[in-house]
Amino acid sequence: MEVTSLLAVFFALTFAASNAKEIPDQIHPLRPQSGAAGRKIPGVHCLSWRLAVETDNIRNWDVVPQVCENYVGHYMLGGQYRMDCYAAAAAAYEYAKSLTLGKDGKDVWIFDVDETALSNLPYYARPDNAFGAKEYNETTFQEWEKEGKAPAVPAVLDLYKKLLKLGFKIVFISGKAESLRKITTQNMHNVGYHTWEKLVLKSAEEKAESLKAYQYKSRERTKLVKKGYRILGNLGDQWSDIIGAHVGNRTFKLPNPMFYIA
Amino acid sequence: MEVTSLLAVFFALTFAASNAKEIPDQIHPLRPQSGAAGRKIPGVHCLSWRLAVETDNIRNWDVVPQVCENYVGHYMLGGQYRMDCYAAAAAAYEYAKSLTLGKDGKDVWIFDVDETALSNLPYYARPDNAFGAKEYNETTFQEWEKEGKAPAVPAVLDLYKKLLKLGFKIVFISGKAESLRKITTQNMHNVGYHTWEKLVLKSAEEKAESLKAYQYKSRERTKLVKKGYRILGNLGDQWSDIIGAHVGNRTFKLPNPMFYIA
Repeated sequence: MEVTSLLAVFFALTFAASNAKEIPDQIHPLRPQSGAAGRKIPGVHCLSWRLAVETDNIRNWDVVPQVCENYVGHYMLGGQYRMDCYAAAAAAYEYAKSLTLGKDGKDVWIFDVDETALSNLPYYARPDNAFGAKEYNETTFQEWEKEGKAPAVPAVLDLYKKLLKLGFKIVFISGKAESLRKITTQNMHNVGYHTWEKLVLKSAEEKAESLKAYQYKSRERTKLVKKGYRILGNLGDQWSDIIGAHVGNRTFKLPNPMFYIA
Repeated sequence: MEVTSLLAVFFALTFAASNAKEIPDQIHPLRPQSGAAGRKIPGVHCLSWRLAVETDNIRNWDVVPQVCENYVGHYMLGGQYRMDCYAAAAAAYEYAKSLTLGKDGKDVWIFDVDETALSNLPYYARPDNAFGAKEYNETTFQEWEKEGKAPAVPAVLDLYKKLLKLGFKIVFISGKAESLRKITTQNMHNVGYHTWEKLVLKSAEEKAESLKAYQYKSRERTKLVKKGYRILGNLGDQWSDIIGAHVGNRTFKLPNPMFYIA
């Protein structure tokens, strides 16, 4: 990236900052709202833990360390998470607009859905989930999914709109169940995602295969490539979104310190 | 990683914290020592920039944004960098000790040298380098290299010793010039690295090829694999250390917000 593009990223970040101020904090009333955000907890280093998670040094973790529940909560709700998402999206947009797209409509940008296009933060902020510091509960998560009330991740919605303007075809690849197609589509429409080439969800048969997410997503991307699509960019909150086969010419990692999917 | 291993990482981090306190801060007297460490600079988000760099979202950058010079300086000198290095090393050690090594002495752990085994922080903290906020100066960097006075990165030296005890063969792969072999070897001995299988440096002919670092390092790792070595782990501060061919069964990314090598 040249110095000029770097400056552009900074402009974008600055712009994102002023934009972000207009979006009210989604602070769940039952969660503590003051405390250890960004500060050290003596003897434990949640900031270091988070960086190690984000750089894929710590893998296959089950739950957020108990001592980091407050830290992660404040990270997610206090603004830094949103800023970090905008930084990832700004870098993605810098790259995207540097490209010259083909005229055959085959240039694709891939997005994950959960914690990428859509945010499950209202669910994870609940005391029974404690920002990932409690064990994953498939039953309550599926109940939440069926409500179809997930907000957009603002930085991703913004990037999505910009990519459409640039002429990208958008493909969402999600591990969500095919049975949730209707409610997920409604949810996405409601928050601003109107147009896409494909929304790939997981069929009951695929779920029964018990593939790891990176294997399932690799296979779906391979199908796209075989159909002649060129995957130019790929954005997700999990490393499993952006490793494996045909990841795309550039990949972008959104932050997610609440859960890990292999 | 199971909950027990996660706890072990936390013990390691806590231990590292108490260890780290014994290591005096290497604060360069000519650098400002108070200010924006870990705090927001209004309108600019150095913390988000750093995360985007560490997750490989922002690539091919030349210099640290001017506005982040102080932030990066305080990150590097104020303790968080050291903690983040310990977190990466603790995750690496958790993984390493979970393995059963062969008896043929072919199990290898790869380390990069600059900003991994050795720290050039005393050089980068100089006002003429400004923690990477000034353009890279090959002449002054080579002068610094020839002094052979780089300290160890404490977390990496600690990991190195533990890996030797576990029975790993250590291979250092560096883009440093072959002509620096003697002084680099002395430097490494002086700070505690005594034993290694190979120290791979770049010959003048290799330098003339102008390969990217990830290509050069991929080729060197491929040579190792062809000789029958098994690369089980790989730790570096640049993504170019840990992408490409034969990266190893697990890779670990150390922080480095001061410079980028493709």
